[in-house]
Amino acid sequence: MSACIFEVRHTPIRDELWVKLPNQDATYIPALWLRTRSEAPEERDLGTRQRLINPHKLATDIEVTQALITGDALQLQFSDGLSNSLSLARLLRDLKLDDECPHTIAWRTADWQIPAFTKGQRPLPRYDWRTLIQDDYFLNALTDFIQYGFLLLHDTPTEPNSLLTIARRFGYLRETNFGLLFDVRSIPPSEQTDFSDDLAYRAIGLDPHTDNPYRTPVPGIQLLHCLENQTEGGYSTLVDSLAVCATLKAEDPTGYALLTTTPLRFEYRSSQAQLVNVCPVIEQDGRGQMIGVHFSPRLCDLPLLDEPSTRQLQAALARLSSLFSDPSYELHFKLMPGELIMFDNNRVLHGRTAFDPTQGNRHLQGCYIDRDTPRSHYRRLSQQLNRTL
Amino acid sequence: MSACIFEVRHTPIRDELWVKLPNQDATYIPALWLRTRSEAPEERDLGTRQRLINPHKLATDIEVTQALITGDALQLQFSDGLSNSLSLARLLRDLKLDDECPHTIAWRTADWQIPAFTKGQRPLPRYDWRTLIQDDYFLNALTDFIQYGFLLLHDTPTEPNSLLTIARRFGYLRETNFGLLFDVRSIPPSEQTDFSDDLAYRAIGLDPHTDNPYRTPVPGIQLLHCLENQTEGGYSTLVDSLAVCATLKAEDPTGYALLTTTPLRFEYRSSQAQLVNVCPVIEQDGRGQMIGVHFSPRLCDLPLLDEPSTRQLQAALARLSSLFSDPSYELHFKLMPGELIMFDNNRVLHGRTAFDPTQGNRHLQGCYIDRDTPRSHYRRLSQQLNRTL
Repeated sequence: MSACIFEVRHTPIRDELWVKLPNQDATYIPALWLRTRSEAPEERDLGTRQRLINPHKLATDIEVTQALITGDALQLQFSDGLSNSLSLARLLRDLKLDDECPHTIAWRTADWQIPAFTKGQRPLPRYDWRTLIQDDYFLNALTDFIQYGFLLLHDTPTEPNSLLTIARRFGYLRETNFGLLFDVRSIPPSEQTDFSDDLAYRAIGLDPHTDNPYRTPVPGIQLLHCLENQTEGGYSTLVDSLAVCATLKAEDPTGYALLTTTPLRFEYRSSQAQLVNVCPVIEQDGRGQMIGVHFSPRLCDLPLLDEPSTRQLQAALARLSSLFSDPSYELHFKLMPGELIMFDNNRVLHGRTAFDPTQGNRHLQGCYIDRDTPRSHYRRLSQQLNRTL
Repeated sequence: MSACIFEVRHTPIRDELWVKLPNQDATYIPALWLRTRSEAPEERDLGTRQRLINPHKLATDIEVTQALITGDALQLQFSDGLSNSLSLARLLRDLKLDDECPHTIAWRTADWQIPAFTKGQRPLPRYDWRTLIQDDYFLNALTDFIQYGFLLLHDTPTEPNSLLTIARRFGYLRETNFGLLFDVRSIPPSEQTDFSDDLAYRAIGLDPHTDNPYRTPVPGIQLLHCLENQTEGGYSTLVDSLAVCATLKAEDPTGYALLTTTPLRFEYRSSQAQLVNVCPVIEQDGRGQMIGVHFSPRLCDLPLLDEPSTRQLQAALARLSSLFSDPSYELHFKLMPGELIMFDNNRVLHGRTAFDPTQGNRHLQGCYIDRDTPRSHYRRLSQQLNRTL
């Protein structure tokens, strides 16, 4: 197949490799691009695939003096003397410089099938912890997580701290100012022996927010594990910032742009830590693509701007805040003992509804893992199981 | 002092707070900016300073109906009914939305006093581990680290794994695909029992690079601890990417801009991890300020661009690579047993010169910590010790 897509053109001064992809014009592949991909054993360790030379030192005006396609192999002779054979299948994969993971799929409440709430097209991405040991099942879970930014696990052990074992299945634990693992616990007032200042320990609702927006970098993925829940309220909430921000961008492109460029200050102050991060609310990656938000109204300060800009920024923040709490976007479900949610803390906001602490105990444990490790597992398993996108 | 800088202007429709900073025009401070900074106990928990309300819900057209300065206090009456008193000193500090840390100072080799090498103005930022227990000494070390992006410690214990204790003094440990702690060890060939594939285990030199550019996010700060060094070569090297990129930007603004916007692919492949990051070489923060580079020629692939763009990108990479290894920028020093370097892995590249493994053992241990924790310690201590920038 590859051979039909690639074509060698002989010119008086050089040979050229061209590629013709469906619905695209034929594209010339620069000799330098090919030269840096050398598989010569003196230039690349074929076990690790790491280069043994510094490709930035190759001459910019390097040329292919001779090219020949034989089956899947491309035989190349370069003007600097190197002869090399490259796999066309590998070159084809390499034309697109992506991170080899599924694309994100923005979602709203109505997309999901939740009994008594909504009747969307998709069941929630809900997986059995006991089956996650199977590679193909694990790969399905990872695919959903990368696409939707969250995942539910059920039938996990409910012993305290078992979350650490579960989290390590997905990635490296990330310690924060809350420790390696933190407790979100509410006990009936009659049994309380002390009063905690932490909002999470009270029975009030928590609006959608991202955790630790005052960190650089923020913790990438959060896991929240339900050990006990005897109350009737206390629903968990999740909101996809990709869906919300797409709406904001369509409604108010100027407001959206302001939120991608205007730095706000996020801060956390305690006797142990003084954490400050100055950054825009909407976060973009190195390619200018939106990856998520820093959003926690409690912890966030406006910069000093002129009055019209201040009001414009505030209007965008108000709309964003209101969309995050809009039932069309804010997904509600009840986490039962043995259930766990894992979500991309950059992309998916979380919160909870109020509950009545006199009804009984409510105990969750939480922790963070690095953002890129589920993607690493995805790549590894999709190669092993020979699944392609 | 604050009172002279601030001024209340009464207009027929509202009171206005203005500030006049040295060498600047008087600036109006929007009512909304003041309103979100309310210190009212029903709106802010004064212990944690966290807000109890969502400030994004405040009306954009809020006004100050009455303002009065009394000493350091600003008494405010807002159009939504709130009366509040704010500290002018706090408002003054708050006008500038920064992260309350020292600014970076770019450096070259010639800036440092290194016996037998260079005779610059500054001694290396070198601190005694045993004295680091003292807050003011620790604060000096943190200040140097934030300004220069690196630090040396001496008189540390040389027992294996003591690095973990040292690292925890500065921040939370960050586990990676190399474990919580990794060994860089070379033993004389005659004593070798197996052959390792890892370049770090060989005696060859390593050009300046940043670690794990294929991670998202990359490990923020690296610590390298020397336990044993019986060889004569094996000098450690450090390069400040801020200094190098400033030179590149002055020489070739187009090339510099290309490196801030063109995504390259960085990758690490093993049976355990498949880590891929697609991002530009020069990394900027949310405010468009350069924070460092992703740079590791062994692990980096060019994107497919047209031929002129490919050559332009390659020329910029070649120049960058050559500047990183230029003796004017690449600092060399020998790490002796009990010494340790800690450096900002985003900003400061590291490497080592070749050595002769037949001369004896060379054993370093390394680990990573989060990027923002030394800054947190800096803020905490500078407040405690009442030091200001």
